[in-house]
Amino acid sequence: MEAITNVLASRYASGAMRAIWSPRGRILLEREFWIAVLKAQRDLGLPIPPEAITAYERVKEQIDLDSIRRREQTLRHDVKARIDEFCALAGFEHIHKGLTSRDLTESVEALQIYRALELARLKAVAALVALSRRAGENKNVLLAARTHNVAAQLTTVGKRLAMFGEELLLALEALDPLIERFPVRGLKGAVGTQLDQLTLFRGDVGKVVELEERVLAHLGIQRTLMAPGQVYPRSLDFAVISALYQLGAGPSSFAKTLRLMAGHELAGEGFAPGQVGSSAMPHKMNSRSCERLNGLHVVLRGYVTMAEGLAGDQWNEGDVSCSVVRRVMLPDAFFALDGLLETMLTILMHMEINPAVVEREVRRYLPFLSTTTILMEAVKAGVGRETAHEIIKEHAVAATRDLRTGKIVENDLFQRLASDRRLGLDAPALERIARDTRAHPGAAAAQVDWLMRAVLPWCERFPAATDLKPEPIL
Amino acid sequence: MEAITNVLASRYASGAMRAIWSPRGRILLEREFWIAVLKAQRDLGLPIPPEAITAYERVKEQIDLDSIRRREQTLRHDVKARIDEFCALAGFEHIHKGLTSRDLTESVEALQIYRALELARLKAVAALVALSRRAGENKNVLLAARTHNVAAQLTTVGKRLAMFGEELLLALEALDPLIERFPVRGLKGAVGTQLDQLTLFRGDVGKVVELEERVLAHLGIQRTLMAPGQVYPRSLDFAVISALYQLGAGPSSFAKTLRLMAGHELAGEGFAPGQVGSSAMPHKMNSRSCERLNGLHVVLRGYVTMAEGLAGDQWNEGDVSCSVVRRVMLPDAFFALDGLLETMLTILMHMEINPAVVEREVRRYLPFLSTTTILMEAVKAGVGRETAHEIIKEHAVAATRDLRTGKIVENDLFQRLASDRRLGLDAPALERIARDTRAHPGAAAAQVDWLMRAVLPWCERFPAATDLKPEPIL
Amino acid sequence: MEAITNVLASRYASGAMRAIWSPRGRILLEREFWIAVLKAQRDLGLPIPPEAITAYERVKEQIDLDSIRRREQTLRHDVKARIDEFCALAGFEHIHKGLTSRDLTESVEALQIYRALELARLKAVAALVALSRRAGENKNVLLAARTHNVAAQLTTVGKRLAMFGEELLLALEALDPLIERFPVRGLKGAVGTQLDQLTLFRGDVGKVVELEERVLAHLGIQRTLMAPGQVYPRSLDFAVISALYQLGAGPSSFAKTLRLMAGHELAGEGFAPGQVGSSAMPHKMNSRSCERLNGLHVVLRGYVTMAEGLAGDQWNEGDVSCSVVRRVMLPDAFFALDGLLETMLTILMHMEINPAVVEREVRRYLPFLSTTTILMEAVKAGVGRETAHEIIKEHAVAATRDLRTGKIVENDLFQRLASDRRLGLDAPALERIARDTRAHPGAAAAQVDWLMRAVLPWCERFPAATDLKPEPIL
Amino acid sequence: MEAITNVLASRYASGAMRAIWSPRGRILLEREFWIAVLKAQRDLGLPIPPEAITAYERVKEQIDLDSIRRREQTLRHDVKARIDEFCALAGFEHIHKGLTSRDLTESVEALQIYRALELARLKAVAALVALSRRAGENKNVLLAARTHNVAAQLTTVGKRLAMFGEELLLALEALDPLIERFPVRGLKGAVGTQLDQLTLFRGDVGKVVELEERVLAHLGIQRTLMAPGQVYPRSLDFAVISALYQLGAGPSSFAKTLRLMAGHELAGEGFAPGQVGSSAMPHKMNSRSCERLNGLHVVLRGYVTMAEGLAGDQWNEGDVSCSVVRRVMLPDAFFALDGLLETMLTILMHMEINPAVVEREVRRYLPFLSTTTILMEAVKAGVGRETAHEIIKEHAVAATRDLRTGKIVENDLFQRLASDRRLGLDAPALERIARDTRAHPGAAAAQVDWLMRAVLPWCERFPAATDLKPEPIL
Repeated sequence: MEAITNVLASRYASGAMRAIWSPRGRILLEREFWIAVLKAQRDLGLPIPPEAITAYERVKEQIDLDSIRRREQTLRHDVKARIDEFCALAGFEHIHKGLTSRDLTESVEALQIYRALELARLKAVAALVALSRRAGENKNVLLAARTHNVAAQLTTVGKRLAMFGEELLLALEALDPLIERFPVRGLKGAVGTQLDQLTLFRGDVGKVVELEERVLAHLGIQRTLMAPGQVYPRSLDFAVISALYQLGAGPSSFAKTLRLMAGHELAGEGFAPGQVGSSAMPHKMNSRSCERLNGLHVVLRGYVTMAEGLAGDQWNEGDVSCSVVRRVMLPDAFFALDGLLETMLTILMHMEINPAVVEREVRRYLPFLSTTTILMEAVKAGVGRETAHEIIKEHAVAATRDLRTGKIVENDLFQRLASDRRLGLDAPALERIARDTRAHPGAAAAQVDWLMRAVLPWCERFPAATDLKPEPIL
Repeated sequence: MEAITNVLASRYASGAMRAIWSPRGRILLEREFWIAVLKAQRDLGLPIPPEAITAYERVKEQIDLDSIRRREQTLRHDVKARIDEFCALAGFEHIHKGLTSRDLTESVEALQIYRALELARLKAVAALVALSRRAGENKNVLLAARTHNVAAQLTTVGKRLAMFGEELLLALEALDPLIERFPVRGLKGAVGTQLDQLTLFRGDVGKVVELEERVLAHLGIQRTLMAPGQVYPRSLDFAVISALYQLGAGPSSFAKTLRLMAGHELAGEGFAPGQVGSSAMPHKMNSRSCERLNGLHVVLRGYVTMAEGLAGDQWNEGDVSCSVVRRVMLPDAFFALDGLLETMLTILMHMEINPAVVEREVRRYLPFLSTTTILMEAVKAGVGRETAHEIIKEHAVAATRDLRTGKIVENDLFQRLASDRRLGLDAPALERIARDTRAHPGAAAAQVDWLMRAVLPWCERFPAATDLKPEPIL
Repeated sequence: MEAITNVLASRYASGAMRAIWSPRGRILLEREFWIAVLKAQRDLGLPIPPEAITAYERVKEQIDLDSIRRREQTLRHDVKARIDEFCALAGFEHIHKGLTSRDLTESVEALQIYRALELARLKAVAALVALSRRAGENKNVLLAARTHNVAAQLTTVGKRLAMFGEELLLALEALDPLIERFPVRGLKGAVGTQLDQLTLFRGDVGKVVELEERVLAHLGIQRTLMAPGQVYPRSLDFAVISALYQLGAGPSSFAKTLRLMAGHELAGEGFAPGQVGSSAMPHKMNSRSCERLNGLHVVLRGYVTMAEGLAGDQWNEGDVSCSVVRRVMLPDAFFALDGLLETMLTILMHMEINPAVVEREVRRYLPFLSTTTILMEAVKAGVGRETAHEIIKEHAVAATRDLRTGKIVENDLFQRLASDRRLGLDAPALERIARDTRAHPGAAAAQVDWLMRAVLPWCERFPAATDLKPEPIL
Repeated sequence: MEAITNVLASRYASGAMRAIWSPRGRILLEREFWIAVLKAQRDLGLPIPPEAITAYERVKEQIDLDSIRRREQTLRHDVKARIDEFCALAGFEHIHKGLTSRDLTESVEALQIYRALELARLKAVAALVALSRRAGENKNVLLAARTHNVAAQLTTVGKRLAMFGEELLLALEALDPLIERFPVRGLKGAVGTQLDQLTLFRGDVGKVVELEERVLAHLGIQRTLMAPGQVYPRSLDFAVISALYQLGAGPSSFAKTLRLMAGHELAGEGFAPGQVGSSAMPHKMNSRSCERLNGLHVVLRGYVTMAEGLAGDQWNEGDVSCSVVRRVMLPDAFFALDGLLETMLTILMHMEINPAVVEREVRRYLPFLSTTTILMEAVKAGVGRETAHEIIKEHAVAATRDLRTGKIVENDLFQRLASDRRLGLDAPALERIARDTRAHPGAAAAQVDWLMRAVLPWCERFPAATDLKPEPIL
């Protein structure tokens, strides 16, 4: 049978994320978990021979997925297959005492999620840092801001980037408490009452509590659930996956906007050396990475849907109807987000702004964007508000029409208005207005400064994020 | 034209939630917002006649939706229609100075969301309190816990309820920082650069900051966005709606489990006086409220999807492609959640546990559930593990078969095992095991105690939640 | 209590669609259904006094929603409330014999869905006709087709429209068999076995079959389910709602592309008289209707999600966990689609193409778009392929750079190539290539012709669609 | 780098489905496509040396995925990498003439979808056949039908199965026209105008049409799109994936109901030899396959969401924002459905009904289920309707209470009613009613017969479906 590889893992995710979710990696996590439980049980008085622990330690990295699979086909039970394999390798039968399958699998999967969340946070910080840098570089580059995809007012390129940076920052702030509060189910037994460990320790509650604490310490997670059933509530999975989706939203809006800007030649992804195919000619330098990023956000959405299907659907103390969903959804959602952030980092590394095109667009729209001010000045100069509005609109409509019919190439609205005596504003007055408009794009630059400051505490917490490089992308 | 009412609002949501989202309520919020801005602008030096403010105050509650609608049909602009109406009533034209439509609508909608979130939190706390009380009442009622929908181990009814309580608690803990961090966009102008207010205040940054702070104080929200575009990032809407979905998950799992329990006559919703139709006969006392609750959770899921469609889809500084989505999604999601929590409170008020049926089920399954212990005792008594397992299984299979074929009515596995000499356990020994099994359902009771303690700080923060009564439901 | 209106119904849907789903309309459908059953039962021999039928007929349009609601609050059973009201009005108690609630409600809801599907089909045909007309008008208007949002090859405006027309046509072809095969559940009784009617007719299978056929004839639907439970399978609802979503996809892609074109001033929605607000100045003529259309498609997606939550979730013979979902999802999905198609018709009525801007873009990109042909001609003229490619790319990169830095305004790639001796193509040769490229935009025009022909059979089947006018939109 | 395998493919899907979507299989399909185009181009007059075709044919199965991947890493273009690899192997450069990447990929992916749809249909027919057989076997086994998860009326086990069979049948009927109408995009060139092939054939429309027809013949698909852009409309993908979801709904409802039945020990999945773990004891024979099936349906829902994100989101003539989504969604959706149907077949093969438990439940509820008839008979016997209703309800409430409190074990409602003189019905009369009720479960059996007939034409069309065996499942 030809193995079919996971396309998200192999094409889009980074090595670090793949390592967390790889089948071999998972087996190793499980074995380390078993050994940690074993040691804790021994320390707490269970009769476990030291040579057994040594034996398990020695063979824990001998991972033969095919052998495990063959066992599973016979036993029709995945965890039992893995227990048998590990015991056969070690020559002892001491692991998994007082554990049910879910004590193992819920813990190991929680650990995978936890580590993957930490990695996602790190990368999101890296993306935020990179975005704030690009915002800083372009903080004063005037740009015709667009609402409804048409020019509306001036802003700066940097401010536009800062806008998406703030969205990413908000998502990071939402992710943070999720990681801090993240609970693991713990060794709660078949239906969550801790019966099995209590039995093992002859009802000694203190020892069972201590056992669980040692296991938490091994996992590096602070918190355990207090009253779960066989499984932890699947709405926690939903909280995780929806947090990933939120994390992807700022980059996705950024990518969509960069695709729009590329359509106007205002900006682009840059041109990778050696790139061929339909994108080899300069006019075809397309936004393939931005498109990919947007695609990955859509992919993530599918996993949110899967998580929704599990949340609120627990029957009694639980069952395995969630099993196949989680096998697919958990790694794939993290692979998708990881690929999304890798792509984001790549785009930010190569993105090019074309200042002359940006400026040409400003020039084209500036007269229109100044009309509000012109109106105010005309009113100050004594013209009635309605009259002034009508005059300006008349010329604006005419200028627009002539630009659109090709009668004129450059926007001549200022000239038209200057030559209309009714408005009482001469050319120098209008030029002054234009100059003033350009000089004051509101608080755009200050907002960029704000973002750059806001990023600093994240850089301090996660110094590795400040120079995290994306892996080369396909 | 016959008005078609919003079915979620009219059939499921409470008066308090309807009030937040009602068209008239919203108009009033907008007018109060305009007046607050007006007062702040006056205080900061803009020339606004006091009699104008008085006039607006006087007419603010004269809300004629038909008149506004007629204006909108002419103007094809919803905000302008509402400005004109308010100004016509007041006889002044001073509101909305330096504001763009979104300065108004984003603020008012954020306020609606914020208040609705607070209401949702209060109700969720009320549901948690009610659930913990029912858990407390049933903390020691032995119950056959089920995994895969079949009996697995003993637990207690109270612990089962505590399990869903913890899920609700986790969602509340996730909701809390969302409310605390909730930002309003503020008066950021057409493209988010604050140009319009800066112009109005002739570039006086300090005054613009002060104006925004006063507006925040009016709204009662702590935080403002720093670098938005025309709109706030729609991933914030996603964060809100997905938090609601998470909030509904615990109740939804509880409701599903209660439907399952009702199928076994273990518990039910109780019988409302006057109830008729197919549910009037006692055997037909059905779980209609639980079914409704599950339905409302599915409804919520639809609004998560809508929110997903907006997040990450911002083009440049924004547009109104989100408008229709938010008009539908925001109120309807909160109506659905509110109806869900109202239904939850109603169920918890009327829910009946049938202890005799619960006990009958325990008796039926206890022998099977004791097999693990029996095995251990047999091994202690000197029987080989494999041998013991085979013997027990042989009798368990036979007992199961006879129960299922109707050959026996009561589970006689204990007798069968007692009479099998190979196992070395006599009737008294087995009785002792059964007694012990019943006496020690693990940490079930302690877990209920934990929940009851965990609820206390929430009761202190939200005392109104402790005796919040649901409205009568249809 | 202030009634909160359904925003999709009141702002977006047409009167015809509202009429299908209005509460009063539904009551009337139910009453007509009861009367039809009553007549059929009488004809088949049940003792029903003719004056009872007359009495029901007489009062059937006396619909007092408040009175019904009061009854429901007492009875806690919606169908019983409506039975009692109708009987009280008529002074008889003969309706609903041998019926269960679901015999009534499933039938009436199926009828609403069926009629709403027919209306949706009609409007979709109208949109298709309008789209094909605009395609025809612009069939030869050369346009720079874009892939990755950058110019790729020539096409025509008409062909671009035809592309979206074909997508709509494919959705219509998918909708058609859904309507033709649409089944109603029929009078199948409490658990689908027809027990109740069989009892009423003392086991006379022939009469029960005949009764159901008469009811189908009354509904105007051809087909009944044969083995349902209490409800029809909810995957049928999913099939309906997902068909609506597919129907919205072509218009949604069209609207998104028109928003992109408006960003380049290539086309726009036109300027409605009286329109005010931020869109009053000509440069601000924004694509609000296209944005709304895209928003409505996102809204629809939410209802697909709700339908997904019902499909595959039937417990035994059914329950009412689907009830609240369907109350929301069914009307709202149809309102959203109806609003989407109304918006589409409005856009198509007012859409303006700006031929001069379209042509300017063609001119700007034509030299780049001709490079493939230039390469071929250079090879024919004896230059090595790789060499030719390098030369062309060199000049293309330079021209692009100069255009983007503002060094040149018009694309001068042809001149650059003509003056490069290495390529062996002089100015007339290059002009010929340019002329040829413009003259042959592939099969664009023929594809428009194809669409116009493909629309004809639909016009014949649905003549009302050919001049269906949208209602004025807000 | 450790390869991470696709979990849906490796754990759940069948070999036949994996073969359609395997990376090597796809490469082969592409090469065969290129060769088919090459032959057609040669036949239509292009100068292609026969030895080139021979060479390509000879090496087409030499597939080295690593080599292709290395090429892609250099070229950053996936199709170009595959062209180069194939040409390097063959030693010629003749393939892909006049083709764009999408001419190739859209065609090959359409072919994969088409074949996967055919396979899905075949398996769905197999599941339907198996379900109808089990319905036939149990057509007369009386069962207490449940609505709201509580007993409502009698039905038969067979009828319950037939109910889910009809749902599957309806989905098959919806799938059928989708397959019949399935269009491939064809060789439409970079922006859909066929420019590239028209250029290659010097404007000869006839030859281009003929070329496309030959390619269709090679693919075995009847229909081509007429006016697409660079890509086919992605709402077609949505139509496909949503059809798969509909196909899974009947099995999913069946599986959920079987899980419910297992909870009452009415039925189960059977006990696979060698099965171990928590399910090894008889009382723990759990519904893991049904749970898996339900899980796979939730997984499918995620891919519907991804497809929704593509439909209606085409920008101009298209781009690659759909690429990553389709790489994930298309194979994974088919793997999930395939696994779902494999699981369904497995369940149907092993499912066990426990007739004695089914009968015990009928006995328990029969008295309650007979109350409607008892009421009618009492009225016939001269008791007032209201009076009779009250008497019956009084005893029913008491019997229910005593059953639930454990005071009685068997339902004694008949005795209670018989001994109440007010009702005028003696024990023999009540026994007669009970017997009659049991004898006439409505049209249950006839409905099973109907399904068995309805399945026949599908068996004739797809004879392979009648004995299709599932692969062993993990």
